[in-house]
Amino acid sequence: MLDKLPEYRFPIDPWRLIEREYRGDDLGTTETLFALGNGYLGMRANPEEGREAHSHGTFLNGFHETWQIHHAEDAYAFAKTGQTVVNVPDAKLMKLYVDDEPFLLATADLDQYERVLDFRSGVLERNVVWRTPAGKRVRISSRRMVSFTHRHLAVMTLEVTLLDSPAPVVISSQLMNRQDGEDEYHVEAASLGEGKDPRQARKFTERVLEPKLTRERDNEIVLGYRCNHSKMTLACGTRHLIDTPCSVNVATSVADDLAKTVYTVRATPGDPIRVTKLVAYHDSKGVPTPELADRCTRTLKRAAGDGIEQLFSEQREWLDEFWERSDIELRGDDRAQQALRWNVFQLGQASARTQEQGIAAKGVTGGGYDGHYFWDTEVYVAPFLAYTSPEAARKVVRFRWKMLDAARERAAELSQRGALYPWRTINGEEASAYYAAGTAQYHINSAIVFALRRYLEASGDLEFLAREGAEVLVETARLWADLGFYSTNGNRTFHIHRVTGPDEYTTVVNDNAYTNVMARFNLRYAARTVRFLAEWNPEQFAALRRATNLRLEELDEWDAAADAMFIPFDDRLGIHPQDSSFLELEPWNWDGVPKEKYPLLLNFHPLVIYRHQVLKQADVVLAMFLRREHFSIEQMRRNFDYYDPITTGDSSLSACVQAIVAAEVGYDDLALEYFEQSLYLDLCDTHGNTADGVHVASLGGVWAGVVHGFAGMVEWGDYLEFSPRLPAKWEGLAFKIHRHGSVLRIDLDRDGCTLEVTDGAGVPIIDGDNRLMVEPGQPYRIPAKP
Amino acid sequence: MLDKLPEYRFPIDPWRLIEREYRGDDLGTTETLFALGNGYLGMRANPEEGREAHSHGTFLNGFHETWQIHHAEDAYAFAKTGQTVVNVPDAKLMKLYVDDEPFLLATADLDQYERVLDFRSGVLERNVVWRTPAGKRVRISSRRMVSFTHRHLAVMTLEVTLLDSPAPVVISSQLMNRQDGEDEYHVEAASLGEGKDPRQARKFTERVLEPKLTRERDNEIVLGYRCNHSKMTLACGTRHLIDTPCSVNVATSVADDLAKTVYTVRATPGDPIRVTKLVAYHDSKGVPTPELADRCTRTLKRAAGDGIEQLFSEQREWLDEFWERSDIELRGDDRAQQALRWNVFQLGQASARTQEQGIAAKGVTGGGYDGHYFWDTEVYVAPFLAYTSPEAARKVVRFRWKMLDAARERAAELSQRGALYPWRTINGEEASAYYAAGTAQYHINSAIVFALRRYLEASGDLEFLAREGAEVLVETARLWADLGFYSTNGNRTFHIHRVTGPDEYTTVVNDNAYTNVMARFNLRYAARTVRFLAEWNPEQFAALRRATNLRLEELDEWDAAADAMFIPFDDRLGIHPQDSSFLELEPWNWDGVPKEKYPLLLNFHPLVIYRHQVLKQADVVLAMFLRREHFSIEQMRRNFDYYDPITTGDSSLSACVQAIVAAEVGYDDLALEYFEQSLYLDLCDTHGNTADGVHVASLGGVWAGVVHGFAGMVEWGDYLEFSPRLPAKWEGLAFKIHRHGSVLRIDLDRDGCTLEVTDGAGVPIIDGDNRLMVEPGQPYRIPAKP
Repeated sequence: MLDKLPEYRFPIDPWRLIEREYRGDDLGTTETLFALGNGYLGMRANPEEGREAHSHGTFLNGFHETWQIHHAEDAYAFAKTGQTVVNVPDAKLMKLYVDDEPFLLATADLDQYERVLDFRSGVLERNVVWRTPAGKRVRISSRRMVSFTHRHLAVMTLEVTLLDSPAPVVISSQLMNRQDGEDEYHVEAASLGEGKDPRQARKFTERVLEPKLTRERDNEIVLGYRCNHSKMTLACGTRHLIDTPCSVNVATSVADDLAKTVYTVRATPGDPIRVTKLVAYHDSKGVPTPELADRCTRTLKRAAGDGIEQLFSEQREWLDEFWERSDIELRGDDRAQQALRWNVFQLGQASARTQEQGIAAKGVTGGGYDGHYFWDTEVYVAPFLAYTSPEAARKVVRFRWKMLDAARERAAELSQRGALYPWRTINGEEASAYYAAGTAQYHINSAIVFALRRYLEASGDLEFLAREGAEVLVETARLWADLGFYSTNGNRTFHIHRVTGPDEYTTVVNDNAYTNVMARFNLRYAARTVRFLAEWNPEQFAALRRATNLRLEELDEWDAAADAMFIPFDDRLGIHPQDSSFLELEPWNWDGVPKEKYPLLLNFHPLVIYRHQVLKQADVVLAMFLRREHFSIEQMRRNFDYYDPITTGDSSLSACVQAIVAAEVGYDDLALEYFEQSLYLDLCDTHGNTADGVHVASLGGVWAGVVHGFAGMVEWGDYLEFSPRLPAKWEGLAFKIHRHGSVLRIDLDRDGCTLEVTDGAGVPIIDGDNRLMVEPGQPYRIPAKP
Repeated sequence: MLDKLPEYRFPIDPWRLIEREYRGDDLGTTETLFALGNGYLGMRANPEEGREAHSHGTFLNGFHETWQIHHAEDAYAFAKTGQTVVNVPDAKLMKLYVDDEPFLLATADLDQYERVLDFRSGVLERNVVWRTPAGKRVRISSRRMVSFTHRHLAVMTLEVTLLDSPAPVVISSQLMNRQDGEDEYHVEAASLGEGKDPRQARKFTERVLEPKLTRERDNEIVLGYRCNHSKMTLACGTRHLIDTPCSVNVATSVADDLAKTVYTVRATPGDPIRVTKLVAYHDSKGVPTPELADRCTRTLKRAAGDGIEQLFSEQREWLDEFWERSDIELRGDDRAQQALRWNVFQLGQASARTQEQGIAAKGVTGGGYDGHYFWDTEVYVAPFLAYTSPEAARKVVRFRWKMLDAARERAAELSQRGALYPWRTINGEEASAYYAAGTAQYHINSAIVFALRRYLEASGDLEFLAREGAEVLVETARLWADLGFYSTNGNRTFHIHRVTGPDEYTTVVNDNAYTNVMARFNLRYAARTVRFLAEWNPEQFAALRRATNLRLEELDEWDAAADAMFIPFDDRLGIHPQDSSFLELEPWNWDGVPKEKYPLLLNFHPLVIYRHQVLKQADVVLAMFLRREHFSIEQMRRNFDYYDPITTGDSSLSACVQAIVAAEVGYDDLALEYFEQSLYLDLCDTHGNTADGVHVASLGGVWAGVVHGFAGMVEWGDYLEFSPRLPAKWEGLAFKIHRHGSVLRIDLDRDGCTLEVTDGAGVPIIDGDNRLMVEPGQPYRIPAKP
């Protein structure tokens, strides 16, 4: 695996991802790995020159086009509206010509090349020395930053210095709306055959962005567009500055799809030419583009006023605080330390400034999965946010609260009470066209409640509970109570049928263990929390009842359903079957299916996969991790022993969870192996589709692997338990978590771990049979179990 | 129900369907009910004038366009090529103008109107007296016939007689290729929203038939076309004759999409103007249109030479023989007699001249279900054919044999050995875009074997068995043996998982009872028959082994799988659960779902339907009918009692089978009720979609209802058993069946039935505990059970 990260090309560095050799054969992957983003605005790491690219991507979280889903064979309540994140106009372009010869990485004779993504400065830098066709050496240095502090802003600089002899230098800085077909990636991907890999983004065959505005004044250019069908609007603007002792001529041109600011310079050796480019993007659901253009102007003016050095400095300050909260320090494995920080940095880039939006499966690094929001943000990413930046977790949950009306409508379409969240969506409408692995995954409801609870526990934010959280709890619990039913076969057990669990290699089954475990949690937590609200804040409770027509008996009904919830268990094997008939399935032919036939979903008809005991991810194992309290260690081990060998790991959500539970049940080597699989999943492109964007859920899973796997953190109500089990090849591991407003630092070494409250009041923990408080200033030591 | 057939409008007649009032509000239904066809060429009953229509349909069996199926979310081995029967150029048009005023039924002032479909003459007649806007009375008589004896030929006559005063009369006889959008039906249907009812035919949005040829010579016009994508070719030609004492001028014009032969007549009162129009259609997979045009010329010349009176007379002779073989005589219920004959007549029209093609779900009467062939032809129609016209059954089975290579390829795509027949197809490729209710219906394999066996038993055609049948048996049995597997849970039972039975309201289940029963039959019958072949004709057996790479051990493997086949049975209820988890499903809310929410498939998301014990058709009941020998009467009654109340009958395949089994278990009133539901299913448009074409399978089911339901015929190996149970409101019922080359007439009265061999050698039967022969000339009496 690590041979994909050879040191000569990607040297080890604890705080930076570095590339020392340009290569054209893995452009898609490196565009993703070096991508910049702030959760709202994302830019893939395309070079300033444009041209060679897997995908010239610039994305605004939630900015999407809609389209009618045509079902080859339609049925009632199938998803109707497709939604695809739009690749917005490209402002990264700063083309360079020396002696009228274009600088292009793919063909350039390079004396030096280095590209660096710095996790502390939040800046992508490139330093190149180019020997032009005329033999002149030119130093080209560029910096690019998507601001964490100014949501709509990106900053770029390009510095060109002739080293030998004078030459005319042209820098053409562009803002280009790439329509389909002009983008090499699209052409290439289309040749794969439409929909060949359902995980890639939809290719549009007609114009998506209709030009609505071009504006050029002072030093500023703004282009405005409206999406053809979704009617979302967009403005993007640039502002340029040039700084050089050489003589300069500037010309601008503005057309619907291309704005250029062209500097023609009589460059003299040793005299740097530095162009600064400020870029602003604003979008909306329908605000007219002139208004958005004004917003761009304000963003650009403010940034120009601040000056770019201050902007770079604010960026570093923001990241200092981020790392203070979120860093994972790893001692004894420098490559893994680098990878860990890259993972955490990408989590920051995916979540920092999402504001009113969610976090897409690929963050803002690519168009994969159409830019949709899924359940995995809630289960894999929200805990990281809750434990390190509670405010960011709040946004994730609030985003779902805002979607509640759409989810109520969707439940009604599916003939159910309450709310059913869409399996994949941008605008709140169900966009999953294949219900068996989409709409049938009702468990998304419980994922949202899981994230809500994580946030409430990290923050203690009762106001949020009262105003937003409780409504989500009521409507999700209602869905479960209505979806399931009591079996009339003697024992009144509560069953949930024809659903799909997280494992998509078995679909539309009865009593999926994961779903039932999580539904039970959802029902109980809703009943308990709503009762708490009734007592704590009768006025808010009254408001809740008005908003939801809640009957008091419903709370009892939820508890009763939870108590009667059927969780499949096989006495003979001592395991929890994945669903009520899973153990009846035929074993998969592990020996007979060659390696190149994986992932199975691209090589076998769904019926073939569904017919066998073969998993994409082990959802019983996930259930054990998420609802640890319901499983004994013995049960966990038996389940893990059963499911691990039949899990393909074709899902990127699989390895991190296998790592955590392997660690929990004492399979240390396997735990590390799985952890490393998820740690390097994107960096080594192990799933072959990092080009489509980072796997955000897996990034969160890596964090969880450290915290829950190696530090063994388990939540027991108000108490935390730690079971330190540092992999033998490491020397130490340290991180912090937020807990009810306090901050707890956990520092693992080979013998155990030290807990220390670094901020706030004491934190309650369990150590063996003891419940106690770790008090500020009094580090507490937990020895590793022998 | 029968209020849809009021006597003043549809008078009762034992041999004719008659309409006495024109109405514009059920055009789609009457176009279907009065449609003509010979299994190859079908013409909907549009009036000669064109214009008002639900669908101006003319169809050639198997003549189709292909299109790429776009799956909203694609997956491996999903069906790729859509196929849709093409509405071919319309030759029915013979427009009439008197005093330049067009005759149009919708607006005409009619003194008299009658439309008659005569089951013995095979001619559709219309007789009208029109009072023109000028007050002149005009008698208009037309006849139309699709020839049973000349596959490619249709004949029409139009006779116009002025009754009062002279007037200029224009008859414009046309051949029109209606492109989409010009057809009122398409416009109307499109407004329903694409795919709203998945049972309707696909609407094309681009030109399908590319004009390739126009030819006009002598008295003949031919147009030739090629399908845009399938590249199938078509030629259609007309030849006209006019006969009148009045003075006539004729003009023809030919363009790509419209050929006209226009007669302008100075008509005088009392002098009939009679125009005869001969029409020929020829199509092919790719023969150039000039060659097809020549074939049209030959067809037309021959017909012209014969003269139309001879053509009409041949038609009657063909039908005389048809009725001799196929008639069902019903005494004591004239309306039912008429309906029965209409049903049988439509079966004849669907099957007479299919030649190298199958029988589509709508025959050649409409574009519903895209003109596809399904399993129901084999199960519902092939027995009628086998028992009345064995040669027609042979064609049905041979058509599937010819599809074997495609079915082998499809099995391989689905990772299986053997052959898997497509769920729906025209050209042999799977065209079902929704696999859960399509490809997953593996039971189609057994349906084909079922039809094969019916044919072999009726005909004793061992040559066919040796040359075609055995190969089908080997490859279908192989599929089952490979698809299923032996459970390792102690008892080595054989299971077939993740399949869908005929009931499409429960999909992708384990051990569907119907599927397993039929797979067992398929396996056993294949093993036994191939063994028989090995003994009977070693040479053909050797050829079979070469063609299929058959290993001898496979025969034992098929027997073993059949012996170990798991058939779900619930001891407590004493019933066969529809599948292994059916009884665990939630009961359907029968009281809470209003009537207008049926059929459920148009009003509930599939997941909602699948989650409940609610059936579209009761496939366990069907299994009991098809494999009667495996079920005791007690089991049958229990199963029927369980499934009948939870069966919606949303499928048109349901009522006839419920009727048969209800009769078998002694529910006489219910049997008659269900029988009448299927008898009048199209005539009273009870499913609301007769406009899309007749329900061919249900037609076959009506025949089966008489034979197996009321006569109680059951096959026990070589013996037939009869249990006469004539509904109390009838006086008698008589029909014939073919058996090993003999013909047996069964005549039911209130006390029992009389069996009589009317042709061939004796026929072995079972009567109570006796096995005996009914010998020619010695009628045998079976009394009704008290």
